[in-house]
Amino acid sequence: MQSFSSASHIAELLNQLPAGDDNARSAAAARQDQLTKPPGSLGRLEQLALWMATWQQTMSPVLEHGKCLVFAGNHGVVRQGISPFPAEVTQQMVWNFEAGGAAINQLCATAGLELSVTALDLDRPTVDFTTAPAMDPDQVVHAMNAGATAVPQDCDYLVVGEMGIGNTTSAAALCMARFGGNASGWVGPGTGLDAAGVTHKAMIVQAAIDRHGSELHDPISLLAAYGGRELAAIAGAILEARLRSIPVMLDGFISSAAAATLTAGNRLDVLDHCLISHLSPEPGHMRLASALRKQPLLDLRMRLGEASGAAVATLLVRAALATHNGMATFAEAGVSKET
Amino acid sequence: MQSFSSASHIAELLNQLPAGDDNARSAAAARQDQLTKPPGSLGRLEQLALWMATWQQTMSPVLEHGKCLVFAGNHGVVRQGISPFPAEVTQQMVWNFEAGGAAINQLCATAGLELSVTALDLDRPTVDFTTAPAMDPDQVVHAMNAGATAVPQDCDYLVVGEMGIGNTTSAAALCMARFGGNASGWVGPGTGLDAAGVTHKAMIVQAAIDRHGSELHDPISLLAAYGGRELAAIAGAILEARLRSIPVMLDGFISSAAAATLTAGNRLDVLDHCLISHLSPEPGHMRLASALRKQPLLDLRMRLGEASGAAVATLLVRAALATHNGMATFAEAGVSKET
Repeated sequence: MQSFSSASHIAELLNQLPAGDDNARSAAAARQDQLTKPPGSLGRLEQLALWMATWQQTMSPVLEHGKCLVFAGNHGVVRQGISPFPAEVTQQMVWNFEAGGAAINQLCATAGLELSVTALDLDRPTVDFTTAPAMDPDQVVHAMNAGATAVPQDCDYLVVGEMGIGNTTSAAALCMARFGGNASGWVGPGTGLDAAGVTHKAMIVQAAIDRHGSELHDPISLLAAYGGRELAAIAGAILEARLRSIPVMLDGFISSAAAATLTAGNRLDVLDHCLISHLSPEPGHMRLASALRKQPLLDLRMRLGEASGAAVATLLVRAALATHNGMATFAEAGVSKET
Repeated sequence: MQSFSSASHIAELLNQLPAGDDNARSAAAARQDQLTKPPGSLGRLEQLALWMATWQQTMSPVLEHGKCLVFAGNHGVVRQGISPFPAEVTQQMVWNFEAGGAAINQLCATAGLELSVTALDLDRPTVDFTTAPAMDPDQVVHAMNAGATAVPQDCDYLVVGEMGIGNTTSAAALCMARFGGNASGWVGPGTGLDAAGVTHKAMIVQAAIDRHGSELHDPISLLAAYGGRELAAIAGAILEARLRSIPVMLDGFISSAAAATLTAGNRLDVLDHCLISHLSPEPGHMRLASALRKQPLLDLRMRLGEASGAAVATLLVRAALATHNGMATFAEAGVSKET
């Protein structure tokens, strides 16, 4: 079963997205105002509960079938020397995920999320996008379907993340193509480049933009030019979640960049069901979050990927739902309101 | 059983505080560098694990007997009209805590913390400190002992918080007495004062400082002048935790102010075992965190008190320990390190 039959099918779906449930949001907000606390005093926890209510379409949202999807892909651009880690690490980390030894395994256990890892043709890296498009459109649609079909039927909350040596370079190119600016404003150290490495990475991103241009006004064209498969899969999962009204927690720079491809044609509303979990120290992330008009929930200087920041932010969603659903009202508790 | 026999006993204890375990910290840091992630890529989660290691004196810290202590007290200064809620709400909220209906009940359940609430002579508010000292020194020592004895024997991690209508005014006065500055820089809306109410609150704090002065170079004098009982109890619990090398997560403005009293005499090191969980929007809190040289972990615009922010930050500690203790090393997972 696949969700998307073609690039034009995806374009059609993007033009008829379901909105969130404003009635559920209002009912949840009315409940918040009755709970035994000064109005608004739980800050962003209250906003999280309303966001969950809006997309789950109920005043009493839950997190019972939370899913964490991690997609892995390899990038031809790695041969340009833009990562301190060798490309084999993508496969090695997938084995580590499968063996339960990675950060995301521990964080999913802590947050009560079911983890599923999808390795996308790791033995066939995308094309080095400084020389030709990373993928053809069919490959993009195929990867987006891999993302969409990974969203389980009973899913009530989705976390997305990635693993792919070289993919901050792909993400930086996507951001520059989507939002403009200078290559140096979108690149950063990734897993640990030094200053010279970052300068080289900016040159690689600029070379890619020079080749493919930035007049790419749809998600498929953007992803075909700059890759990679794991970013396309994330975009597919996010779109599928929107079609099924499932709230999505994005991870850091790379998953935000993957999400941003869906906003091509200046459709920021496509991501109304998504939050950015945390601000990465990767310099492009603050710029990207701002372009998407989203305020990350956490700022813990995490820069691991693997959905790690999104899994941690899920703990805040749990806190938000516990207070929203569990607290007594002023009337129930016999507590006086303001004079 | 009491921990502190007198003000001079407390002064003695403050002069011979045990340090953290630097060997445990180094061993934990060495482990972090072997885990399957780019070095430092878990950001503040790694720092949290090292902090737990330092104070639990082990390279493998745990959170098995985490305790959340909430202290409640009433304030004579409430008669000056510095809160939109009536003083009865302190007792009503204690009943709400006992019935399980408050935010902190849900958040402790989410974070796996055992909650214990100590109501301190709610029928005897402290003296209105615009007219006389809030307490005498014996009352301060008594309240500090209530805090210390509330820390369980098997406690391996402590969260502190409070409930007390009027206590942002007490906290603001303590901060001004301890760190100087203007009253207007330390006061804020608390549970919901309007601008005129905040201006009035600043006048009340200034009147208190004019009466008692700020040449108060020990915790007991500060707490006696400006109260309240719940703040003294928090200070007592924090000191007891330090004597037993238990890491402490502070809540927001009020518990940070209570902690700050222990630094009288410019001894910031007294709080080396404490972190500030979150930044409150109460304007004095950023100033106070900066004076204590601590960077709050979260910024969620929470301003409820009750240890709510500290309970939420405990979720980050759980994430930190899960990764620190549970992840595979590069060698265990067969993952290549940087080239």
